[in-house]
Amino acid sequence: MRFLRSLATSFALLAALAPCIAGSAELRGTGDLGIIIERAAGRAVLVETTTHTILGMFDGLGDLSHASAVFSRDGRFAFVFGRDGGLSKLDLLTGTVAARIIQAGNSIGGAISQDGRLVAVSNYEPGGVRVFDSATLAPVADIPAVYGADERRSRVVGLVDAPGRRFVFSLFDADEIWVADLNNEKSPAIQRVPGIGREPYDALITPDARYYVAGLFGEDGLALLDLWAPEQGVRRVLADYGRGEERLPVYKMPHLEGWAAAGDYLFVPGVGHHYVLAVDRRTWQEVARIWVHGQPVFAMARPDGRQVWVNFALPDNDAVQVIDVATLKVVQEFNPGRAVLHMEFTPRGEEVWISARDDNRVVVYDTATFKPVAELAVDQPSGIFFAARANRIGM
Amino acid sequence: MRFLRSLATSFALLAALAPCIAGSAELRGTGDLGIIIERAAGRAVLVETTTHTILGMFDGLGDLSHASAVFSRDGRFAFVFGRDGGLSKLDLLTGTVAARIIQAGNSIGGAISQDGRLVAVSNYEPGGVRVFDSATLAPVADIPAVYGADERRSRVVGLVDAPGRRFVFSLFDADEIWVADLNNEKSPAIQRVPGIGREPYDALITPDARYYVAGLFGEDGLALLDLWAPEQGVRRVLADYGRGEERLPVYKMPHLEGWAAAGDYLFVPGVGHHYVLAVDRRTWQEVARIWVHGQPVFAMARPDGRQVWVNFALPDNDAVQVIDVATLKVVQEFNPGRAVLHMEFTPRGEEVWISARDDNRVVVYDTATFKPVAELAVDQPSGIFFAARANRIGM
Repeated sequence: MRFLRSLATSFALLAALAPCIAGSAELRGTGDLGIIIERAAGRAVLVETTTHTILGMFDGLGDLSHASAVFSRDGRFAFVFGRDGGLSKLDLLTGTVAARIIQAGNSIGGAISQDGRLVAVSNYEPGGVRVFDSATLAPVADIPAVYGADERRSRVVGLVDAPGRRFVFSLFDADEIWVADLNNEKSPAIQRVPGIGREPYDALITPDARYYVAGLFGEDGLALLDLWAPEQGVRRVLADYGRGEERLPVYKMPHLEGWAAAGDYLFVPGVGHHYVLAVDRRTWQEVARIWVHGQPVFAMARPDGRQVWVNFALPDNDAVQVIDVATLKVVQEFNPGRAVLHMEFTPRGEEVWISARDDNRVVVYDTATFKPVAELAVDQPSGIFFAARANRIGM
Repeated sequence: MRFLRSLATSFALLAALAPCIAGSAELRGTGDLGIIIERAAGRAVLVETTTHTILGMFDGLGDLSHASAVFSRDGRFAFVFGRDGGLSKLDLLTGTVAARIIQAGNSIGGAISQDGRLVAVSNYEPGGVRVFDSATLAPVADIPAVYGADERRSRVVGLVDAPGRRFVFSLFDADEIWVADLNNEKSPAIQRVPGIGREPYDALITPDARYYVAGLFGEDGLALLDLWAPEQGVRRVLADYGRGEERLPVYKMPHLEGWAAAGDYLFVPGVGHHYVLAVDRRTWQEVARIWVHGQPVFAMARPDGRQVWVNFALPDNDAVQVIDVATLKVVQEFNPGRAVLHMEFTPRGEEVWISARDDNRVVVYDTATFKPVAELAVDQPSGIFFAARANRIGM
């Protein structure tokens, strides 16, 4: 009897403390957390930047061959967008997948609203944007990218968030930019900007969240939309952008996530050429061409804007070069490994994490000394995303 | 015997779970947390911005009449600098004071290093800067602000962090700027910039962490130091700045934390006049004067740079005005309450929190509609600081 009583006491204690045990992941801040995509395995690794350590892993995330991520406003959750239409909500504190849905057939990219309440995904199939409640992933709105007299649906690209609970995106098949206002969630207000140029294949929003820039596959130049005055339509900038000896396939066009803002300039990977353009942020005029190692893919600005780090496409994709913003010259070059796919700076910029997919590692560099300070074993790493993005517009 | 055994089992269980119980504050992210200073009571209130709620309170923080705060790189801790030399480390997750020291007699302001490992405090008495380990608050370095043949110690002002584990600060009594490199903690390397102008009373670092700007009490104009080339010394900018009909006492000089960067401009409170200057960020030339309600104290930029919100000194300190950056015109005005001391935007800028000290409240406004959305009862609130500052240089 007494044995049973003590057993009961023990179980009662355990039951009472069960929530405590289950959530007894140690208390910690979220500001120094991040995820790294393991693109072949369909997993994401959970990392801490302060100590350069792997804390855990999220499995079963589907097709991550072209994955991206955004973060909840409290920094606790990552929303991962998979190529197969998967949308996964990852809890960085418990190391578990909090929620997961398949919301479309073929999907590319997503965004989170300024207030953190809505997550949007841009889909190729069916063409359009779907919006979900960030807390539950319950569907909130569906925006079919319908165009033309026969009401076809266009593939959607270049989805970003903009201030005021808006999402901005481009319709590849329709040559349009749409600005969707989600303040009335049941009935999103769509502002259509037609005739922006042929086949927008990607886009970005400038760090000040003012300009939406769409890259055009079907013609040279870029379409620039002032989000403070979208009714004025687009203007063409960098009119020669894209002009090469031969037309590249669309998947080889430099993606606009590869642009960097630093100092007075935007740094823009050249198309089909081995240079990075320095473009004046006020006038949108090209100021300089910086010749680099190969076809640049990403130009990433160190957060203080003093350097821009560049990686490259095949066959030069084992190298990284560093451009000094003051002189617009290449000042460093090194090889983190084979197939450098992505780079991410710590939020204040003292270190940068670099993926080397074919060497199954991520290397961390000190951005003042350019010396490697840590190396992590990660399976075919691609995208690296830090939780500090939670507090930046357009990320 | 069996009773003792069951008791022992229960105690063993409790002991094993003690860390769990003690730290059983619910798991949560830190990205949406913040603190508000209760200046008269020597307390700080812990708040969450997502739900506009008060989560707890930190007591016994000494003289907070001119307090400021920085955050650990993981966003979990706030370091509060008190006027009486107090340095308090607050745990935002447990709601407790993790550590507290009195490190000087009279103190003004502090900073945290780019990598988050060092916390520095600037002291009037004894004049100099003291540096502490951010994990433990153990002393790391002491930099007496010694100058002149008779080796007096100057009061130190305008302390900021700069990339590369450096701290930059000004010596009010010595007319100097010092750049301290803490990479060798036992022996900080000090670069002295002498003769920068008379009586620097405050300073700031531009958001790109490139320029250190010191306000001069003893003459008109400001001293500008390019941190990418500090050996070149300072140059004078805004040569008329400070020129008023009469000389103001130093405590009435607008503090340089009151400057805002938005769009192409810096917004600078006028000295002794009812205007805000718009200064071109590239040329440092004054571009416009925006006439406002009273003597401006803080100009704070909405994170997307579309608006600048301004508060005022006595007797107009119950008002806030909003400047539209595109047109450089005042577009809104309202009264959050009596004695508006400080404002803080949520990191993506959709809301702003405003202190009204003499009404013992903090009001939250939607920055798109300008409507109040929440109100919190806080005792004589002054400074409002959000944990998102953890991930921004110079904050």
